[in-house]
Amino acid sequence: MLKDVQFPERPEEEELKIRLKAAREKLQAQQLRLKEHKTPVLVLVEGWGTAGKGSLIGELITNIDPRFFKVASMTVPTEEEKRKPFLCRYFEKIPEAGKFAFLDSGWMDEITEGVLNGELNEKQYQMKIDSIRRFERQLTDNGYLVMKFFCHISKKEQKKRIEELCSDIDTSWRISDKDKWQNKHYEKCLSVFDRYMEDTNSPSDPWYLLDCKSKRWAELQALETLTQGIEIAMQNARLAVPLLQNTFPLKKLPKLSEIPLNKELTDEKYKEELDRLQAQLKELHNRLYRKKVPVVIVYEGWDAAGKGGNIKRITQALDPRGFEVHPIASPEPHEKARHYLWRFWTRLPKTGHIAIFDRSWYGRVMVERLEGFCSENDWKRAYNEMNEFEKELHDFGTVIIKFWVQIDKDTQLARFEERQNTPGKQWKITEEDWRNREKWDAYEVAVNEMLQKTSTTYAPWHILESVDKKYARIKALKIVIEELEKVLK
Amino acid sequence: MLKDVQFPERPEEEELKIRLKAAREKLQAQQLRLKEHKTPVLVLVEGWGTAGKGSLIGELITNIDPRFFKVASMTVPTEEEKRKPFLCRYFEKIPEAGKFAFLDSGWMDEITEGVLNGELNEKQYQMKIDSIRRFERQLTDNGYLVMKFFCHISKKEQKKRIEELCSDIDTSWRISDKDKWQNKHYEKCLSVFDRYMEDTNSPSDPWYLLDCKSKRWAELQALETLTQGIEIAMQNARLAVPLLQNTFPLKKLPKLSEIPLNKELTDEKYKEELDRLQAQLKELHNRLYRKKVPVVIVYEGWDAAGKGGNIKRITQALDPRGFEVHPIASPEPHEKARHYLWRFWTRLPKTGHIAIFDRSWYGRVMVERLEGFCSENDWKRAYNEMNEFEKELHDFGTVIIKFWVQIDKDTQLARFEERQNTPGKQWKITEEDWRNREKWDAYEVAVNEMLQKTSTTYAPWHILESVDKKYARIKALKIVIEELEKVLK
Repeated sequence: MLKDVQFPERPEEEELKIRLKAAREKLQAQQLRLKEHKTPVLVLVEGWGTAGKGSLIGELITNIDPRFFKVASMTVPTEEEKRKPFLCRYFEKIPEAGKFAFLDSGWMDEITEGVLNGELNEKQYQMKIDSIRRFERQLTDNGYLVMKFFCHISKKEQKKRIEELCSDIDTSWRISDKDKWQNKHYEKCLSVFDRYMEDTNSPSDPWYLLDCKSKRWAELQALETLTQGIEIAMQNARLAVPLLQNTFPLKKLPKLSEIPLNKELTDEKYKEELDRLQAQLKELHNRLYRKKVPVVIVYEGWDAAGKGGNIKRITQALDPRGFEVHPIASPEPHEKARHYLWRFWTRLPKTGHIAIFDRSWYGRVMVERLEGFCSENDWKRAYNEMNEFEKELHDFGTVIIKFWVQIDKDTQLARFEERQNTPGKQWKITEEDWRNREKWDAYEVAVNEMLQKTSTTYAPWHILESVDKKYARIKALKIVIEELEKVLK
Repeated sequence: MLKDVQFPERPEEEELKIRLKAAREKLQAQQLRLKEHKTPVLVLVEGWGTAGKGSLIGELITNIDPRFFKVASMTVPTEEEKRKPFLCRYFEKIPEAGKFAFLDSGWMDEITEGVLNGELNEKQYQMKIDSIRRFERQLTDNGYLVMKFFCHISKKEQKKRIEELCSDIDTSWRISDKDKWQNKHYEKCLSVFDRYMEDTNSPSDPWYLLDCKSKRWAELQALETLTQGIEIAMQNARLAVPLLQNTFPLKKLPKLSEIPLNKELTDEKYKEELDRLQAQLKELHNRLYRKKVPVVIVYEGWDAAGKGGNIKRITQALDPRGFEVHPIASPEPHEKARHYLWRFWTRLPKTGHIAIFDRSWYGRVMVERLEGFCSENDWKRAYNEMNEFEKELHDFGTVIIKFWVQIDKDTQLARFEERQNTPGKQWKITEEDWRNREKWDAYEVAVNEMLQKTSTTYAPWHILESVDKKYARIKALKIVIEELEKVLK
């Protein structure tokens, strides 16, 4: 792409002026329509050092109301950021519906830099490319407009700029060693950039190269391309996109109706096991911390199945500085305004930590599906999106443990009634619980589909038979211990 | 993709039966809605020899009214087909709006076969992949649903089938040498197939792998995937898609208003040049034929600019067996029902032949743009689509010569009036010509944009200053001769 790009000629001064004015006005006018249309716009600005990425963003945003955009300048990941999957810090930055986010270099720079300094070998590079393709496709599929710009200048031009900036003490600090290195190894960088852009140039997320030899000409190209992209995005209402075939290895699970629920433990046996297993988990948690393994534990299950009590038996064994429980209710407005996985990407555990999700992203294919909170295409696409999400976590080294806490309909009824009739427990039962109960059969269909489609070998579901809560708790502890031991050995 | 595919388990007989029935009924019901929605569906069925591609298509079509589908069994290209760009025979087969086309193997098979038998080297393979990506993307962008299936069986299964079929004289003819070769070199084929599928697996045109170990199970997978794809395609009304940045090398052209139109020739000089040049062209046409070079000449220009007379001066010098003139009017219903380039793909010259287009695909960005016959996204996308189209022809070795026949507004008026006032010429002037004339300025904007955006180095526009028709004719002859000499030397 970059190697054989041929830019159109810079227009004459008079034409440039007229077109710049028109393009600026267009962007100004678009921002309100965009807000109405609820399209989020992510503008990624990559490019050569000294090509003028920062000042280009500066020019673009003068046309947008400050309430409608955010700018993030992404540098090398900090030590803290390195403790989460690499896409995490980019996912955090995605804009809300109807707003802009500008990134001053981003995931491209991180990858090409990794290749150039030898940190990424071919296989790792390929994995990152896969991750990025999925990431960008997920954004587009979920209604994001992703505009990827690359600011291009020639080797000669870059050299000239570096020399000019370096010659003045007031500007020389703006030149980094990286810029100098880049210019010295311009051809090598060019071919790494070129390959990256070829590898990530998809029809729905194409690259746009900007000729940055002249500042206002660069601004014009960016403005015209950006406004054109916005115009097109707004022509489309809700978009249904192809459902991809599953390519992740799956583990077969039984249907809910096939699971025997007669398993139980005596009080005595329970007590004994609980003490032993909690002691064991406590010890593992320390090793986990030292070995810097991140852990995600997901609890899903019927209302009154006993998730809370089960989670408590796990956390009792953990050092409070090393875990967090995230109770997941319906999303807040600022969460709803973003990709549905955003509120989970931003709650990921860092290395050595455990995050326990009391309900999770799987709401997409259960409550959101059944209550019509998202389109059919949305929830059907979500199985793959969630497998991709967990693949990202897994590739980073995260241990993922997913529990489905299972009871039968009669047990639920008995527990509901007990809650209703026990003054101290009445807060635990709401009208909504009763309404959901009425939809038990529809939920069962959805849960079965979810268990079949998202039980990957790297993040399988485990069934906790919870008619006897004691049995379920011991089983959960055993599974957590087993999974942790696998990575700690 | 293929290497690590994990298929879901074949359902139990009872479930299979129920789901098959449901899926068949769904497809039956969809065909009429599809017709209303005007979505064309192209189903590509690729896969291993003996995997059951043919019988799968046979099963699928039993659910569709014969008026609504066509099946094409693509084998190795014939000698005749090899005389046109390789995508030509596939483009010809694309379905009409609201109808199905099933291809029993296609462009994948052609490419992987080429790799396996050593006919395609790495560079050629990459070029084909680029062509195919563009082809598939163009179809999808233009509202086609493209479903790509790959029928998969294991080496062992294939071996078993070959042996079984060979053992019976009634079926042994169904086993080709290719099937046997494939089984012997299964791993090698697998890795070529796998790479091809990775290379062409785009989010908008994804691959779907079918586990073809059992026939009815394969049918179910295909039916469920196909009906799901149709459902999604119908959820979208007209789709606006991103406009890609130009990546083709462009040649700068002057604006129409900058072209001096005072050029002329004396009658004497004209006569002399005409005779000389036509003799030269005649001789070149023979060499062209022997060297098997295909040629495309496009004429666009204002009404009454003198296209017809100009074309005649070219064809006078040509052997009638070696050229064809295609006058292009508004598309017929069966042409309108397909990708707008279809009627040009099906009119391409074979090697050694000349096709002259009196008006052409450029109508998309002139009359269709100005009269609103296509959406804004459609015509804006078309510049790139046409550059891609011509790139295909160029890569095949086609000489492409494009003329814009230019006159000024006054000259047109004079010629219109002369036509109106000359009994033998009145048929040449219509109400529409006068209407178009009123839109001269809008057309001029569109023509300028077209000339700037589609004058690639491999298919540049040439301006024929035609206020003096004699001058324009001689210039056209000279350009044709010059371009042909380039390839014939």
